[in-house]
Amino acid sequence: MRSPAAPTSARQAARRVRILRAASDLGARDGLVDVQMHDVAREAGVAIATLYRYFPSKPFLFLAVLEWHIEQFLGGRDGGAPVTADADPVAEVAETLVALTGRLLGNRLLASAVALSSFTEYASAVPSRIDIVERALGQRLLRLIEDRADARSRVRLLVYTWWGLFVAMLTEEISTERGEADLRLAARLIAAV
Amino acid sequence: MRSPAAPTSARQAARRVRILRAASDLGARDGLVDVQMHDVAREAGVAIATLYRYFPSKPFLFLAVLEWHIEQFLGGRDGGAPVTADADPVAEVAETLVALTGRLLGNRLLASAVALSSFTEYASAVPSRIDIVERALGQRLLRLIEDRADARSRVRLLVYTWWGLFVAMLTEEISTERGEADLRLAARLIAAV
Repeated sequence: MRSPAAPTSARQAARRVRILRAASDLGARDGLVDVQMHDVAREAGVAIATLYRYFPSKPFLFLAVLEWHIEQFLGGRDGGAPVTADADPVAEVAETLVALTGRLLGNRLLASAVALSSFTEYASAVPSRIDIVERALGQRLLRLIEDRADARSRVRLLVYTWWGLFVAMLTEEISTERGEADLRLAARLIAAV
Repeated sequence: MRSPAAPTSARQAARRVRILRAASDLGARDGLVDVQMHDVAREAGVAIATLYRYFPSKPFLFLAVLEWHIEQFLGGRDGGAPVTADADPVAEVAETLVALTGRLLGNRLLASAVALSSFTEYASAVPSRIDIVERALGQRLLRLIEDRADARSRVRLLVYTWWGLFVAMLTEEISTERGEADLRLAARLIAAV
């Protein structure tokens, strides 16, 4: 008798990643507005109905792309290793935020797609950008500063600040240099003992 | 011979305020989606073409409503009086942010309208929410902490943090009490000497 749970779950996870990779590639090439859900389904090798079962709308899909990229970045950064005792949390927070921002801004069309989808998604009922960013990024930040008073609140302040600076850099309201300096300042002020 | 500049400008300013008040009233009653530009024009007593000359789109109009409310709040708060030497800047920043948030959240339908317009507006070319919020709120905050190192950057961090917490409170991702405590924490950390 086959045990359906594990293989199905593994197959679903693999399919989900295929969809995210396809959306990511097409978003990086065409931008949010020009990506068609049909093209994502074809590129990922899934039926359009399957795609919509995983991701009920294009903004929802690109929010998942954002979360996926953050998770990939954080996983690749230290392989999930525990924070060492002699690490400087403020520097770790600063470099995590700066490096994540640089990674996401490395493809501006894709970065615009995920940022834009986070705004249009606001009107609907699915998890908001901040839920998603807090989930993906917040846990890492929390691990870095969990010994601080008000650690969860500080993580929230860091996430909101990071998001605001990321969007400002993306839209070129501020320069990359200015934004990176501000991210380091935010880490120094908000993650301070 | 009449001098057109001043009277025209005063008349334009008065008309602008009539439009903002009409949009604000209708937004508070009906919410962003259900407000019609025609109704705003009728309520303000201006032609629809005039309304569009002042505000080329509904999101643009409601961003101006947000800016107008912030300006009214700040103007009413101290009448533009200079900051006294013995004021505690951290406490002033905290109470300004908390009180402004409370004022805006006082009518959740209107608050949703201005927040939602700020997101949908992202896709277009008009000034972004952050420009507008920085202009309206940033100058006051800058006056409070202008003696700090990196004062302009700190103001940016405060504005982004405030906006994130405002939206999180509005969408009830966090409670009002939690949000107000976080605003005070942000002031303490970011406006600190």
